[in-house]
Amino acid sequence: MRQAGRSLPEYRKARAGIAMLDACRRPDLVCELTLQPVRRHGVDAAILFSDIVVPLVAAGFELDIVPGTGPVIAHPVATAEDVARLPRLEPDDVGFVTEAIGLTLAELGQVPLIGFAGAPFTVASYLIEGGPSRNHEKTKALMYGAEPLWHELCARLAEMTLTFLRVQVAAGVAVVQLFDSWAGALSEADYRRYVLPHSTTVLQGLADAGVPRIHFGVGTAHLLPAMAEAGADVLGADWRTPLDLAASTTGRPVQGNLDPCVLFAPWDVVEPRVRAVLAEGAGTSGHIFNLGHGVHPATDPDMLTRVVDLVHEVSARA
Amino acid sequence: MRQAGRSLPEYRKARAGIAMLDACRRPDLVCELTLQPVRRHGVDAAILFSDIVVPLVAAGFELDIVPGTGPVIAHPVATAEDVARLPRLEPDDVGFVTEAIGLTLAELGQVPLIGFAGAPFTVASYLIEGGPSRNHEKTKALMYGAEPLWHELCARLAEMTLTFLRVQVAAGVAVVQLFDSWAGALSEADYRRYVLPHSTTVLQGLADAGVPRIHFGVGTAHLLPAMAEAGADVLGADWRTPLDLAASTTGRPVQGNLDPCVLFAPWDVVEPRVRAVLAEGAGTSGHIFNLGHGVHPATDPDMLTRVVDLVHEVSARA
Repeated sequence: MRQAGRSLPEYRKARAGIAMLDACRRPDLVCELTLQPVRRHGVDAAILFSDIVVPLVAAGFELDIVPGTGPVIAHPVATAEDVARLPRLEPDDVGFVTEAIGLTLAELGQVPLIGFAGAPFTVASYLIEGGPSRNHEKTKALMYGAEPLWHELCARLAEMTLTFLRVQVAAGVAVVQLFDSWAGALSEADYRRYVLPHSTTVLQGLADAGVPRIHFGVGTAHLLPAMAEAGADVLGADWRTPLDLAASTTGRPVQGNLDPCVLFAPWDVVEPRVRAVLAEGAGTSGHIFNLGHGVHPATDPDMLTRVVDLVHEVSARA
Repeated sequence: MRQAGRSLPEYRKARAGIAMLDACRRPDLVCELTLQPVRRHGVDAAILFSDIVVPLVAAGFELDIVPGTGPVIAHPVATAEDVARLPRLEPDDVGFVTEAIGLTLAELGQVPLIGFAGAPFTVASYLIEGGPSRNHEKTKALMYGAEPLWHELCARLAEMTLTFLRVQVAAGVAVVQLFDSWAGALSEADYRRYVLPHSTTVLQGLADAGVPRIHFGVGTAHLLPAMAEAGADVLGADWRTPLDLAASTTGRPVQGNLDPCVLFAPWDVVEPRVRAVLAEGAGTSGHIFNLGHGVHPATDPDMLTRVVDLVHEVSARA
């Protein structure tokens, strides 16, 4: 469950007074924050505490993460000069991630660690918009209006992402997950034209890495078959996409898809919905139970624990 | 093209110093702002200048529209008492809309006028969140966690919306459009359980009104068949949903679906995309060309005029 930490009092305590990007660059803290949801909930895998802008910052690009807002970029990418000035990521730039993974693996024991990175479209959207965006207007304006520049930008981001994920694999993560959070804003035709080649660079670039590759975005019911072509072994789906449909249209195992907002309801509402997700997943060729998006910060941690327990109970009986 | 006015200098001039909600309540200004895109672009229909919160405000609910943000509600709806306190809309409360429609029709001549209102889910989301929201967390928390209260709230909003649209029909609009902008945030199963009954109250309640009913939301590829069941004669689709799929899964004529962000690109990019939408629409049993969402304020008005001209040119030849 991505961002499960955000709802934990021990997370808020550990992060107190430490900015997000500073936390991501402190191996001891990354280790602690990665482990917290495993300790608390007994989940079957840990996900590396990080942010999709970490490789950009590590390479020397100037940006900040503003609490309650997200990444904010003082000088957004707009021109060919801006793209040309984007720094390249050297593996040594993210030595702190290698170190953090080493510390974390030593603590995790048999629990596998999932590495992660943001996909080129989603990272490009932050770079061009200068922050989070509802409609991705500037991103699409550049994409539609300056296609060669768009491809140049995404090729650079794909290279950076691939480098970053290779570092994580070399450090020992057991699985990698590529998040294209906002790709759902595109039609399938546009996704194929402007995005798929670059996500393919990343995911196919890891074909020989020996770890399963998960690919996920929000609101991608109409894109999943195309996203599967990028080279993912597992496709994540949010609650809008029925798991059986996700599985049948992609021919892949699927991960998902309980709406994290369901966790705000009482247990007698949550329980049948967790069971329904598991039942739908059981009808596919392979299902990893998960939420359909990150954990909302206001979620009751005890509710997460109950969900994990129920998933384990039902899975053990299956 | 909804919100086409926002990109016009004559719109900004007419609105200068006048708050959105004040503009919506001044019949002379509503008439002028409704007419501007027709004069400028020669579109085939006008859409009433209004906002989805207008009936709420007219009924006496306190809220504001903040420029650059949207509706902001000082005391969001959270409890049974809040729902019980929601004012009812009497037709006389929106006499200014009747007057505005009268003035507008007198100026429009043969050009039909489209009335509009927000659907219960989307209006409820603003009321509960207190403003625009990315994840609709509080809305879903109430929906999942307090289902009877949710249905009571939506039943009241449906009644209000139906009253508001009946006033518009009585005043002479030729078409009504019901916007459920954010319904795409739900799975089809949840849409059917929590939303469809209330949108049906509105749209079926207008079955005898003698005007076509258009129903639209953003990111609704997975919901269109369910949305069609609410009683719409025409389904709007955004650019994520191929028009042929929208038509075949709903059995209805479709409206859409050029991505308004495409209009930021040069004409040699825009032109083939407009032609592609028209070609896709020509393969259905009925197509109304439109954008897939409102016009972005930064759009070049001349680009909109060129698009309208091209649609007319291609349609005249078909």
